[in-house]
Amino acid sequence: MPVSETWLLPDGVADVLPEQAQVIEQLRRRLLDSLASRGYELVYTPFIEYVESLSLLNRNTSDLDLVTFKLIDQISGRLLGVRADITPQVARIDAHVRPVEGIARYCYAATVLHTRPQGLSASRAPLQLGAELFGCEGLEADLEMADLMLTLLQQAGFEHKLHLDLGHVGIFRNLARIAGLSDAQEAELTDLYQRKAIPELAEYTQTLNLGQDFYALGRYGNDLTTLKQQLSAQVLADQTLQQALNALEQAQAHVQQYWPTINVGVDAAELRGYHYHTGLMFAVYGPNRAVPLAQGGRYDGIGIAFGRERAATGFSCDLYVLAQANQANSMPIMLAPLGKDTELQAAIAQARQDGFVVIQALDEQDQHSRASQRLVHDGAIWQRQSV
Amino acid sequence: MPVSETWLLPDGVADVLPEQAQVIEQLRRRLLDSLASRGYELVYTPFIEYVESLSLLNRNTSDLDLVTFKLIDQISGRLLGVRADITPQVARIDAHVRPVEGIARYCYAATVLHTRPQGLSASRAPLQLGAELFGCEGLEADLEMADLMLTLLQQAGFEHKLHLDLGHVGIFRNLARIAGLSDAQEAELTDLYQRKAIPELAEYTQTLNLGQDFYALGRYGNDLTTLKQQLSAQVLADQTLQQALNALEQAQAHVQQYWPTINVGVDAAELRGYHYHTGLMFAVYGPNRAVPLAQGGRYDGIGIAFGRERAATGFSCDLYVLAQANQANSMPIMLAPLGKDTELQAAIAQARQDGFVVIQALDEQDQHSRASQRLVHDGAIWQRQSV
Repeated sequence: MPVSETWLLPDGVADVLPEQAQVIEQLRRRLLDSLASRGYELVYTPFIEYVESLSLLNRNTSDLDLVTFKLIDQISGRLLGVRADITPQVARIDAHVRPVEGIARYCYAATVLHTRPQGLSASRAPLQLGAELFGCEGLEADLEMADLMLTLLQQAGFEHKLHLDLGHVGIFRNLARIAGLSDAQEAELTDLYQRKAIPELAEYTQTLNLGQDFYALGRYGNDLTTLKQQLSAQVLADQTLQQALNALEQAQAHVQQYWPTINVGVDAAELRGYHYHTGLMFAVYGPNRAVPLAQGGRYDGIGIAFGRERAATGFSCDLYVLAQANQANSMPIMLAPLGKDTELQAAIAQARQDGFVVIQALDEQDQHSRASQRLVHDGAIWQRQSV
Repeated sequence: MPVSETWLLPDGVADVLPEQAQVIEQLRRRLLDSLASRGYELVYTPFIEYVESLSLLNRNTSDLDLVTFKLIDQISGRLLGVRADITPQVARIDAHVRPVEGIARYCYAATVLHTRPQGLSASRAPLQLGAELFGCEGLEADLEMADLMLTLLQQAGFEHKLHLDLGHVGIFRNLARIAGLSDAQEAELTDLYQRKAIPELAEYTQTLNLGQDFYALGRYGNDLTTLKQQLSAQVLADQTLQQALNALEQAQAHVQQYWPTINVGVDAAELRGYHYHTGLMFAVYGPNRAVPLAQGGRYDGIGIAFGRERAATGFSCDLYVLAQANQANSMPIMLAPLGKDTELQAAIAQARQDGFVVIQALDEQDQHSRASQRLVHDGAIWQRQSV
């Protein structure tokens, strides 16, 4: 490999240089502090785990399996996976490692790796920050999570023109149950809803049991009032389906009331992460962005693979994406001469306390380009001077 | 895999639960802030790189190669390595990505992965924190680095009974040059010095050119005064070797003067990382610890693989190891009832400002075990009460 190519990095990973690293570091701290002050306790999860352990949490979908880098463990000879998501690891901690009675809240911020970029993002190494809440089935937990997600986005500088999409997998899932759909039919419909292929949906649902209801879900999923008018009496009478519809309606009303500047939309036919999610789902988009700034939802029962079925909801975001709205709060830089004498060291310590970066210049070339002050001895004491 | 085994983690990696994660997070911030205030600029480096890029920096040793996990890049079909050390990546940034004129200072704190535990440590996933200084050949840079390393250890709570080991690979390297050793002889001697095998050294050096000098280096390496008396006039007359001896002596004197509570030892025959280091090396040990708390040294010219030869010195440590001397500074926890009304929210916001974690309890089981306060409405206002 010639020298000129040795610095090339693989697609989708990057160096983060000081200017940007400072922005991300400050944002990371601000958001983690905010989470901590709300009772979300920080955990660090391992970068590698046995693949069985990682994939048990994938609920029969191969989505996460495919994006997980695999490694051979030289110690055990077994296959390891590099974490592609942190939520399953936190669920493992909640289920097995630290089985708290009642509600448990966790947060984290760490790098995950993907074999290929996910969605429209170009990154294969997001800096995932997220929060998870275990042990509460009620809508109040979903609403805490949605509020928290929006609060963090606000604290990350996203205040205007945000769009929140709300969905609930329970509507389609229960409709499928009532209609007695086969797995193949369920998969076909999931695909049609995800592609918003309304004409195809109209054709496909013609021969389906409760076909009109399945069509209505795709056609009027963005408007709950009309959707309810279109659904058949048999379907509307189902209590579990009703609960799902109500939860979606209440979540929409909640956000409209408490986040008046946010544009809220519902999509009852949104099935992102269908095999993973079990209830209310949410995704926030910035203006002119195809990739969500943050997303999450309910994923009850995930801990069952680790011997403990728990209600669960959470959200996550990529700090690299969120950092784009932020500017670094840079400290001013001061140059000082070399030396260990007590007065000089005291003046340096004081300047650092006052919020300066102080560099003791090792030679004449040791001049930071952003330096604005210099520590000079005026014959009597050490003085600060502008450069 | 039965449920009971799904939570087992591979050897040498671990979950870090809230109590310990908080300690590490606080320590991480304290040390990074300290580095920033001294002009060390934070960088984030990629978790994966092409192996060629990672191993070009290994200077013909396979040490780092062997501990580097390898992955196939599904996008390029090429071999990737998971970073096993961050220093080479920072050197790449200095050499190529951000070629600052004059002196450049960087710091970082991130997870590295090792295929096998290194040294006596059990961990395969250290949280490496370190600093690097590029562009200064002089001893003043080495001393800045040694001072910085000891300052950080002090800030991490290690103040007493620390032992600092100083070495300098230039002494043996120049002796080998003067004697005209073959590579095989150099490798044999390196091994004997590393094993402190003095009887074997005595035998092996009998037939060697300048054998008495090589023996003296091993036998009197801990005592520079005696060592100089034992070295032959021909060797002592060599200027480069003299510089190396002087640098080691001055570094020892410097630490003795400015860090009087630290026990300093020199070992002129210390050859840890012999192919990697080029000058002064240092390692700090806590009482009764075989694994250093922090270590580093000079590694001039490393950027040459990326087209820019630069003087370089640095050190690193594992935050998990350093955190053992620390206790979390836990925030008190307050429980509040659910609700969005303005007065309740204002009382919660105030409590968070006052340093409380405030949890709005979602149900009766939402009682954090460490909660010490409760927000209650006394009919007129929200009051804080002890639990």
